Amino acid sequence: MARLITVEDVEYASIGAAILGTGGGGDPFIGKVMAQQAISERGPVTLLGAEEIDDDAWILPSAMMGAPTVMIEKVPEGGEAVRALRAIEARTGRKADATTPIECGGINSMIPFVVGARAGLPVLDGDGMGRAFPELQMETFHVYGLSGSPAAVADERGSVAVIEAADNFQLEWLARGVTIRMGGHAHLVDYPMSGAQYKRTAVRGTISMAIAIGRAVSEARRRGEHPVEAVCRATRDSMYGQGIPLFQGKVVDVERRTREGFAVGRATVAGLKDDAGSELSIRFQNEYLVAVRDGSVLATVPDLICTLDSETGEAVTTERLRYGQRITVVGIPTPEIMRSQAALEVWGPRAFGYDLDFTPLEARFPSYYRECGVPPGKEKYLESSPA
Amino acid sequence: MARLITVEDVEYASIGAAILGTGGGGDPFIGKVMAQQAISERGPVTLLGAEEIDDDAWILPSAMMGAPTVMIEKVPEGGEAVRALRAIEARTGRKADATTPIECGGINSMIPFVVGARAGLPVLDGDGMGRAFPELQMETFHVYGLSGSPAAVADERGSVAVIEAADNFQLEWLARGVTIRMGGHAHLVDYPMSGAQYKRTAVRGTISMAIAIGRAVSEARRRGEHPVEAVCRATRDSMYGQGIPLFQGKVVDVERRTREGFAVGRATVAGLKDDAGSELSIRFQNEYLVAVRDGSVLATVPDLICTLDSETGEAVTTERLRYGQRITVVGIPTPEIMRSQAALEVWGPRAFGYDLDFTPLEARFPSYYRECGVPPGKEKYLESSPA
Repeated sequence: MARLITVEDVEYASIGAAILGTGGGGDPFIGKVMAQQAISERGPVTLLGAEEIDDDAWILPSAMMGAPTVMIEKVPEGGEAVRALRAIEARTGRKADATTPIECGGINSMIPFVVGARAGLPVLDGDGMGRAFPELQMETFHVYGLSGSPAAVADERGSVAVIEAADNFQLEWLARGVTIRMGGHAHLVDYPMSGAQYKRTAVRGTISMAIAIGRAVSEARRRGEHPVEAVCRATRDSMYGQGIPLFQGKVVDVERRTREGFAVGRATVAGLKDDAGSELSIRFQNEYLVAVRDGSVLATVPDLICTLDSETGEAVTTERLRYGQRITVVGIPTPEIMRSQAALEVWGPRAFGYDLDFTPLEARFPSYYRECGVPPGKEKYLESSPA
Repeated sequence: MARLITVEDVEYASIGAAILGTGGGGDPFIGKVMAQQAISERGPVTLLGAEEIDDDAWILPSAMMGAPTVMIEKVPEGGEAVRALRAIEARTGRKADATTPIECGGINSMIPFVVGARAGLPVLDGDGMGRAFPELQMETFHVYGLSGSPAAVADERGSVAVIEAADNFQLEWLARGVTIRMGGHAHLVDYPMSGAQYKRTAVRGTISMAIAIGRAVSEARRRGEHPVEAVCRATRDSMYGQGIPLFQGKVVDVERRTREGFAVGRATVAGLKDDAGSELSIRFQNEYLVAVRDGSVLATVPDLICTLDSETGEAVTTERLRYGQRITVVGIPTPEIMRSQAALEVWGPRAFGYDLDFTPLEARFPSYYRECGVPPGKEKYLESSPA
């Protein structure tokens, strides 16, 4: 299962991870360049499946934190995440055996490869959400009982803050405050954990998934096929299940503010082709949270709402949204580990302030999912739906 | 020289330190109660002169950080500073041999006694400014070359952030950000240093000075003498030199905001008795910075501008200022170690945004100081003054 991740794999992974990042998780171009540079200088990085690590291995997840809008103008120096890793190694008295992403995203799936290449560590094939979310407690690691502390936040000047928070919500609050003071984004190592804890809590196989999606998009483009359809198909045989095209149109309005260190706002999309005459509204906080068509909810967190460039199939992140873009909005069902009651309390629509219960995409669109099938464990959503 | 600090000494120290705190350094009532409770529970604390510690002793200064306006409504839990101390002990791999104040003030001269009593450590008789200042780089420890990092910031919930900053200005910026997120105030251990470093950089004898001032005020009140005069006399034979009454009057206006974690504003005092018909304006950022009478500057940082209750002689901190108070404003010359060029760059009037050079009180009021005398090393200020 172990495989070497090359510069070419990173190309695909950055495309796919940005799609799974649901608008957040950082800019895919910057992430790709950072990881490719590190791998070019230090050599390929080993990707390990969760099942390949020892139960007592010491896993230090690595990521970037902050508003993506800031990241695209204030590009990282490159050594930040390794400094955060060294700080947690020193604090915990134990050298890392591996690093892992905490979320999918154009940057946050890439940072572990920067760390892997620079620190000579393998990267684990999985993360803490199988998508992107804006806050540190929004991770399966938190939902299934792990402590995010001690966590280290590092900037490009060489400053590092090691935070031992009273709980994971306080960790988010304090680390966010440090990140804001570090200029709006910073690098992060949090949820230090054992291999056994990783196996129990991680959303597995997400780097491989990102590479597969990225390759599918790229090959479809080469063959002149429709890249959006390739994205939908690429997740079919995974724990996600097939993606579903929800809306296509033109971006006609974007409201976006950087508030409390987050990129917060709403995009309005005027329908084209089959969706002509309709309007889609998408709300976001770093990531896309809720998609509403003409007043009817189409999809909500934690299912993935992905906006793709209608031509290229590549992700349009929330900070790159702009007037006139032709986009196709795709829903991807979130894996089952993300839908437990405990999980929905942390990242269901209500956790973001929306007065909505979570309804899975499979239950919203049962005929589509009866036709294309669902992964094992998700049949219940079809059964509970009206025929 | 070593002496035991009792509950009674703390009573005096809190009065005197609040006066030396120049309006900042925290509320004397809260500070006194915290220290007296700790000493009542754990016994008296040893006060050591700088000359009594080994050069290789490990000194961890302790303090409170944040807006005093917040402190008087959100009272500390009591264990915060010891948790910060333990975090720095763990980070540096060395148990503390002593703690010390970093500034004079109603709370910040007291916190080390809380730590001393709870952790069984002696407290050193000195600090990093011989007064209070609002920012972490405004310490002789910084001016004379020490690093404030690693520093620990702790709150009442049990969260601790250990910050290793790129420089002391970044430390101030990041620790302030954490403090704001911790609710507006927090406890702090910074500038971990050796005994030799302490001897080279500290403003010595400031706790003894605070006790002497507090006792002088209390005894004057008991004897029916004028407490403000007692304050002025109490510093005469110290490295400060005698205080000078600058203005007496009634507070007629207070502008005060809590901005970026500081209590910032201005007080206007209408003159009474000898000062009737005049108006004094005092600007502050946690501490009093500049006093201007009818458009003429009377005193600026780093000289001490102390506002005393005209009846009791006790300090009126910036957060307790209110309409109608009868106050007497006293200037106390700052010690020589605070007046070097390097020092004035950090805490002269320009460091706070005022387009003013620093002129020492002795040079502003040479006839007063020729009469009462100045401490050794300060004669030059009289010589350079017009006769």
